[in-house]
Amino acid sequence: MPLIARVEFPELFAMIPHVTTPLNSKRTVAELKELRTLTADDNGAQRVAFTPTWMTTRAWLKSKLAELPVEVHTDAAGNLWASLRGESEKELLIGGHMDSVPDGGWLDGCLNVLAGIEILRRINAQYNGKPPVTVRLVDWADEEGARFGKSLFGSSACSGNLDMNEARGLVDKQSIKLPDALANVGIDFERVKDSGKELKNAAAYIELHIEQGPVLLDLNLPLGAVLGTFGVERHAITFHGQAAHSGSTPMNRRKDAFLAAAKMSPEVYQMAERSGNGVCTIGSCTTKPGIVTSVVEECRITLDQRHLDSAKLAAMLAEAKAASERFAKEGNVRVSWERIWQIPPRPFNNDLISLCDEAILETCGKSHRLPSGPLHDAAEVAAAGVPTVMLFVQSLHGISHNKIEDTQEEHLELCVTAFDKLAEKAMGWVNAKQLDDRTWREDPATVK
Amino acid sequence: MPLIARVEFPELFAMIPHVTTPLNSKRTVAELKELRTLTADDNGAQRVAFTPTWMTTRAWLKSKLAELPVEVHTDAAGNLWASLRGESEKELLIGGHMDSVPDGGWLDGCLNVLAGIEILRRINAQYNGKPPVTVRLVDWADEEGARFGKSLFGSSACSGNLDMNEARGLVDKQSIKLPDALANVGIDFERVKDSGKELKNAAAYIELHIEQGPVLLDLNLPLGAVLGTFGVERHAITFHGQAAHSGSTPMNRRKDAFLAAAKMSPEVYQMAERSGNGVCTIGSCTTKPGIVTSVVEECRITLDQRHLDSAKLAAMLAEAKAASERFAKEGNVRVSWERIWQIPPRPFNNDLISLCDEAILETCGKSHRLPSGPLHDAAEVAAAGVPTVMLFVQSLHGISHNKIEDTQEEHLELCVTAFDKLAEKAMGWVNAKQLDDRTWREDPATVK
Repeated sequence: MPLIARVEFPELFAMIPHVTTPLNSKRTVAELKELRTLTADDNGAQRVAFTPTWMTTRAWLKSKLAELPVEVHTDAAGNLWASLRGESEKELLIGGHMDSVPDGGWLDGCLNVLAGIEILRRINAQYNGKPPVTVRLVDWADEEGARFGKSLFGSSACSGNLDMNEARGLVDKQSIKLPDALANVGIDFERVKDSGKELKNAAAYIELHIEQGPVLLDLNLPLGAVLGTFGVERHAITFHGQAAHSGSTPMNRRKDAFLAAAKMSPEVYQMAERSGNGVCTIGSCTTKPGIVTSVVEECRITLDQRHLDSAKLAAMLAEAKAASERFAKEGNVRVSWERIWQIPPRPFNNDLISLCDEAILETCGKSHRLPSGPLHDAAEVAAAGVPTVMLFVQSLHGISHNKIEDTQEEHLELCVTAFDKLAEKAMGWVNAKQLDDRTWREDPATVK
Repeated sequence: MPLIARVEFPELFAMIPHVTTPLNSKRTVAELKELRTLTADDNGAQRVAFTPTWMTTRAWLKSKLAELPVEVHTDAAGNLWASLRGESEKELLIGGHMDSVPDGGWLDGCLNVLAGIEILRRINAQYNGKPPVTVRLVDWADEEGARFGKSLFGSSACSGNLDMNEARGLVDKQSIKLPDALANVGIDFERVKDSGKELKNAAAYIELHIEQGPVLLDLNLPLGAVLGTFGVERHAITFHGQAAHSGSTPMNRRKDAFLAAAKMSPEVYQMAERSGNGVCTIGSCTTKPGIVTSVVEECRITLDQRHLDSAKLAAMLAEAKAASERFAKEGNVRVSWERIWQIPPRPFNNDLISLCDEAILETCGKSHRLPSGPLHDAAEVAAAGVPTVMLFVQSLHGISHNKIEDTQEEHLELCVTAFDKLAEKAMGWVNAKQLDDRTWREDPATVK
């Protein structure tokens, strides 16, 4: 089915006057290019958190925010907040991150923040500086974790999920400790969780991001509503067999660790399919002794399983364990498992997902709901109990964290427009919910 | 079925006087131990070819041969020959190799030679120094190829199969060239193929060896008759897919190089079974980028296929290629093949295989015919057109090229006895064949 509306008939839509929404999505694209000129080199974006280039980025961001009647401050974890006070202290949060991986792309993270600025401009203009609810833009600190190998630093400090003992010991390649790097930019590591108070009045959180995958590209759709971030189970599975001469050992005598490991590969495709929207990846395989003339004695594979539903994720893991034991038994080898990492799924708010769908439909005529494989700051905000949703825009090549990361400019403009519509709907939702709360508080049965 | 005869009732057999065969198989075991004391250290045997320890071994061997009325000389390739002249110039050859890998076992190669000496003693005694055919013992030079990475040096020089250009360029870990190492022990590399004249009158070749595999151990049999050495096809197979994020890439969008490679493993077991007695081994698997969060872009596996029948070996290879292309197509990846090495099968002589079976049956009541996975000097002699057979004795653990390589002493004694019976039968066969040849030469139809 072809896309309709703005994608197909831009000249038609250009004729419709923007009466109530003086949003300028082309300005966001222009500002993304301005930022690229300022913070990228021939190898890509270099806005690694806590570095001089990141500080430059923050200064540039503040100069943009200075044109708006917003209160700007940095919290205890280094997250930057810009607040436009509304009629209500209840807050709609719009989030993103200005930091990048080294040699990164021009969109990952900063698209979200710059779209947020454009939305603040529109809301400020439309409501004469006083929207119905407070609207805040947050630039999370060190989403990528590129320097210390720990992503979602600022948002996990804010949500309270940051493991302080683990984080305290993190070092970069120059053996600089995270607490020292933070002190260098004025952040006291031991107080980073004080940033949690920023969420006190948070009533909704929305985040825009490039998809970083091929789903929307495959569907030929510019935009999608995100259902949540996958839970992850990450394990190393080692099969233990017996080395034996490739010439002198009959097939039925072998204890072939590779055979058992190899059987896991088609099996995980089947369990992912059974699970619905789950994914399973065997990303690495190593063999010992690993020589052409010996049956494999030891074979280690890594398994990464992801699902939006924690029960289905647990089922996939149980199925993988059962399969590994079955294959080990069939092949007369042993199997052992070692957990590398895990995180539970972070499903987003159903009301906000519906509003996101609506905003997309109004913008380009067709929407698609999809889970997010990669993690985002939104997962931390959702974990803190704030109703959350994300909006994805199509990635070309399905590639990010690379200088070739890209999205059609037309799609960038569409995503700013749809994200703005989502912001407006979310403000209304927060306001309505607040009124519901007030009604309840004034229930005659409870007030004497 | 239980073994009968000597294995079960040694005390009974000890009562039977050795009237016609003053063979002393216990002496062979004693001499193996004597050699071990002389040439092994705590890590195992150190009789690496062309080293001082190997020279010591050769001197010890010559001292043993000096007790017999045999002519001893070293040929142009460094092979040592001991000849007991018989009534006929037609020759029965008994072969083995005194060299070992570094840290090797106490039996691999030298068992063959020391059993051969014991048989020369028996034949010399029985025939008063003049057997019906000439009997020659050969100690091949550098069977293992441990130093220069090229096995069967002496026997391939003698058979004419040695690739002179390849051998000329071989270097050891100290960057010493094979021709220089040979010159150091008095061998002129450019003349090594002159050793081929040693086979001029060869009418049969027999070789004893430990099995180096688990077949006889599994069957609870001490001895087996060898059908020939496997032909080998050795290839690297690389599947080329596309790296993609483990979280954001749906299963049906993946170009997973590991999935295609993994499917090869159960498949090669099936093709080995279809082939009859063939074996297929995937010994190594490497993945790129090989990280837990990425679909595998490139997966390289090695495949080693062996069969005694060249047509069936070719069929296995064709099946593997077809399967790899099928799996590549299914998974939307590419596959490429690279030949690492190949050698054709060397089937042994049917008459001699039958005589070997008979000798084993007479010795321990039950025989078994099996192919040899590993290569042996016998393969080169067979390739030179000399009727050949080998006799295998059970290996404990199925392990060789290691200090734990071992065989029950009882089995060692049995193998010397059976090998001696084979030698006697082979002498008779050579003699009868010679008479047949004479008959043929005197065929009235061809003689005027």
